[in-house]
Amino acid sequence: MTETPTRRRSGGRAARTAARSQKLHADIRPVRPGLPGGQYRPLSDTDVLRIHEAALAALEEIGFAKAPPSGVRILTGAGAEMGADGRIRFPRALVEDMLAKASRGITLHGRDPAYDLHLERTNTHYGTAGAAVHMVDPFTGTYRDPGMQDLYDAARLVQALDNVHFLQRPVVCREFTDNAELDLHTLYAACAGTTKHVGTSFTEAANVPACIEMLHEIAGGEAAWRERPFVSNSNCFVVPPFTFAEESCEVMEACIRAGMPVLLLSAGQAGATAPAPIATAVVQAVAECLAGVVYVNALAPGHTAIFGTWPFVSDLRTGAMSGGSGEQALLTAACAQMHQFYGLPGGAAAGIADSKLPDMQAGWEQAISNVMAGLSGLNMIYEAAGMHASLMGFCLESLVLGNDLLGQVQRCVRGVEVRDEYVSIDVMKSVILEGPGHYLGHAQTLRLMQTEYIYPELADRSSPKEWVEKGQPMLLDRARQRKEEILGRDGHMFAPDLEARLRERFDLRPLKRE
Amino acid sequence: MTETPTRRRSGGRAARTAARSQKLHADIRPVRPGLPGGQYRPLSDTDVLRIHEAALAALEEIGFAKAPPSGVRILTGAGAEMGADGRIRFPRALVEDMLAKASRGITLHGRDPAYDLHLERTNTHYGTAGAAVHMVDPFTGTYRDPGMQDLYDAARLVQALDNVHFLQRPVVCREFTDNAELDLHTLYAACAGTTKHVGTSFTEAANVPACIEMLHEIAGGEAAWRERPFVSNSNCFVVPPFTFAEESCEVMEACIRAGMPVLLLSAGQAGATAPAPIATAVVQAVAECLAGVVYVNALAPGHTAIFGTWPFVSDLRTGAMSGGSGEQALLTAACAQMHQFYGLPGGAAAGIADSKLPDMQAGWEQAISNVMAGLSGLNMIYEAAGMHASLMGFCLESLVLGNDLLGQVQRCVRGVEVRDEYVSIDVMKSVILEGPGHYLGHAQTLRLMQTEYIYPELADRSSPKEWVEKGQPMLLDRARQRKEEILGRDGHMFAPDLEARLRERFDLRPLKRE
Repeated sequence: MTETPTRRRSGGRAARTAARSQKLHADIRPVRPGLPGGQYRPLSDTDVLRIHEAALAALEEIGFAKAPPSGVRILTGAGAEMGADGRIRFPRALVEDMLAKASRGITLHGRDPAYDLHLERTNTHYGTAGAAVHMVDPFTGTYRDPGMQDLYDAARLVQALDNVHFLQRPVVCREFTDNAELDLHTLYAACAGTTKHVGTSFTEAANVPACIEMLHEIAGGEAAWRERPFVSNSNCFVVPPFTFAEESCEVMEACIRAGMPVLLLSAGQAGATAPAPIATAVVQAVAECLAGVVYVNALAPGHTAIFGTWPFVSDLRTGAMSGGSGEQALLTAACAQMHQFYGLPGGAAAGIADSKLPDMQAGWEQAISNVMAGLSGLNMIYEAAGMHASLMGFCLESLVLGNDLLGQVQRCVRGVEVRDEYVSIDVMKSVILEGPGHYLGHAQTLRLMQTEYIYPELADRSSPKEWVEKGQPMLLDRARQRKEEILGRDGHMFAPDLEARLRERFDLRPLKRE
Repeated sequence: MTETPTRRRSGGRAARTAARSQKLHADIRPVRPGLPGGQYRPLSDTDVLRIHEAALAALEEIGFAKAPPSGVRILTGAGAEMGADGRIRFPRALVEDMLAKASRGITLHGRDPAYDLHLERTNTHYGTAGAAVHMVDPFTGTYRDPGMQDLYDAARLVQALDNVHFLQRPVVCREFTDNAELDLHTLYAACAGTTKHVGTSFTEAANVPACIEMLHEIAGGEAAWRERPFVSNSNCFVVPPFTFAEESCEVMEACIRAGMPVLLLSAGQAGATAPAPIATAVVQAVAECLAGVVYVNALAPGHTAIFGTWPFVSDLRTGAMSGGSGEQALLTAACAQMHQFYGLPGGAAAGIADSKLPDMQAGWEQAISNVMAGLSGLNMIYEAAGMHASLMGFCLESLVLGNDLLGQVQRCVRGVEVRDEYVSIDVMKSVILEGPGHYLGHAQTLRLMQTEYIYPELADRSSPKEWVEKGQPMLLDRARQRKEEILGRDGHMFAPDLEARLRERFDLRPLKRE
């Protein structure tokens, strides 16, 4: 080390720095949920139209296999055509009619209204998602089975992390062999840990009623639940290419009847279950989600649904998924533009790392797709933090670091404000012609310090000299410390009486609360 | 580890993967220097005009202090006005006249023409830059003094890294106490290590002649040098705000006369030497570079120059620079739009990490600004790889990793191609209605595998299971290995006779060549 550790000068500056690092009230924070994107448009208007036309053609000419009997009734009842080959095809006029009925400008509620998400235009929201089958220990590189406690911990962390706006369950609670138990405990652990909006899945329709009963209990009755449904159903209604997932369709129908918003999720993989060209993968995802729109609106016109084009990418050398690739970032951003073309609330995946660990590779992989998703104006940015190994692994320390990463990304989405004051040369004139010749300490500088500049919590900006003086703090150690600090306090989001009622009604396993 | 290491199945797939991982010829690689950006536009057209107008007003009303006597002659000779306060002010008409004369659609030559960079429209090029005063050892966190050998090693790495398109000298060779020696050895070490375009600085005008003489020798005579000048002068002609740097101006004049392209570099720091609002920092940088355009074109109309608005960002809590921030990424992207407004070849800084190490923080910091710079269509993206600690430290392993990061970024800049073939549903139809029901192995998939998808060299995409089988390779270890592999072979770019002539003519210190 050429830098010699020296005693830091005490006094004014450190105190000022500390004072300026206080947490800001939500209304003056430089970033917030719902910042409008759209400054980045990977597709031309013509491209968008051509993709739309191709999607309509695919729905008319290729159609969908394997609708469940209920789906066949719903879809053909609305005007879809069952072919001799068992495929349901969608006339263009049917798709257009259903698009006209589809919900727009929706709100995804938080259990706490402060966390409501307004999905309209190019408003952007970042959150977790996935179904990782491993928890990652970033210090040993160990991958182990996740359990309900991990999901609960993830939920509590999301609750504490300002730049993570919702919790879609990121891990599979693998201790459960019974699917009904799995679905119930997944819902319980997620809602117990956060009052932000929750997304979850149900393995089969038979499991939905008990879960809905739990939600009624949490909400304070069915009416309250239906008024502000704070959980949405992440629903893989399609097995790409163009095949309905029968059980998921039945789950979707059950959720719709129970008043739960659905995420219509088409998760093809370009080069494997979706076409290899990025544009064609978008065509397929759009077509598949349009079929979902027909399905939902034929059953319940205007039911709250999210257009979930989630095309993933294959590493074409191996066929393995590569969620951390540049191609993935492009796919997701292009999808956002299609959502905007339809005026539908939309979601897709960004922020996935292929790296097994929260290392430099993970940093760039998570950042590139997250910033492009935000700049493209994607309403719901799923998988935005904590995801590694192409969705196989979830890492709590990475989630905590993701909060910093997403803060920076959201600052970029907020963009460059060009107010009258900022294109006036008055401040320049006074500083240069009359003043000190620099802008340090100028009133304008001080005013913007907290409202227009964002500061990371864990990322280190000190000079090499200061860094050595602090003992060369390692990023991952700081992340672990922050994680332990949050999880060390009781962040249980159910009041004791609610918790007691839930445990009386349902056979729930215990959770470690701090 | 829940994954049990098992023997990898031998045979077809591994061999296929290896075959598919061969290096591609430049003309079919999925990314290349000069990919057009511009899909991202942080400023509206009105914003751009307002910033332009404010810059013109600042030039007319505030003007510049401290021009050297030669500069005063050149500028007032062209129509600038020397005020009673010693400041030179620029009438709007003068700026417009000089903009009309300014060079456009320029080429920055490589010593090897294969590396020529064509700066026009929104074409993007990524390279190193900076004047780091430390080398970073990422394994120990040690910061030490850089020397000529480090610069030479950086140049040899850049030569080998496809996604790094030019070498502007990233480190200060600190063993030299004599500035003439410093400038000469800096130029020598950079050109000895790479035939890509080189950028360098000169401490004072008196040092320029010897360096030019060396360039004539390298080029094979003055005419050959002037025909294809492969080194540009990175010139901080302004000390923001609005003060000429006398010595740098004199250097600039000397370089222009010697036929060397100049990078007109305005490196203010928002909140310190530039205004705190992002938009106003852009106004100041644009105004300062416009003064540079007047200077250059008054001296030598149409001389090759790069519009180098490099506004940096302060962490306003401390006043320290934060090149890794989201605000920095916005500043740089906004500048790119201003360059396009003027139709001038432009450059700015992106890819800087504040992190002291190539860790996850560095990954996201470098990625966010690099991808936004590319998408905004910035012609020359300086500081794009290897820079840490807010430009204080340079790291060779990070540079090597930066090649992967930039490959992914460049794939994003390349964007989504929407050809007729890609919005045809023919492949979907045949796969779904007649074929295997998936796209793996389809002719279209195989065709796109190498030309439209990019694969990282060091970043790991294997599954957790495969990763364990490989012994959990760490990213930094792989980077070190790649670095040593490149530096272990003789990559000296001067033929023996040229090297001998240079050493005969100049008193040059030795370099370790492998």
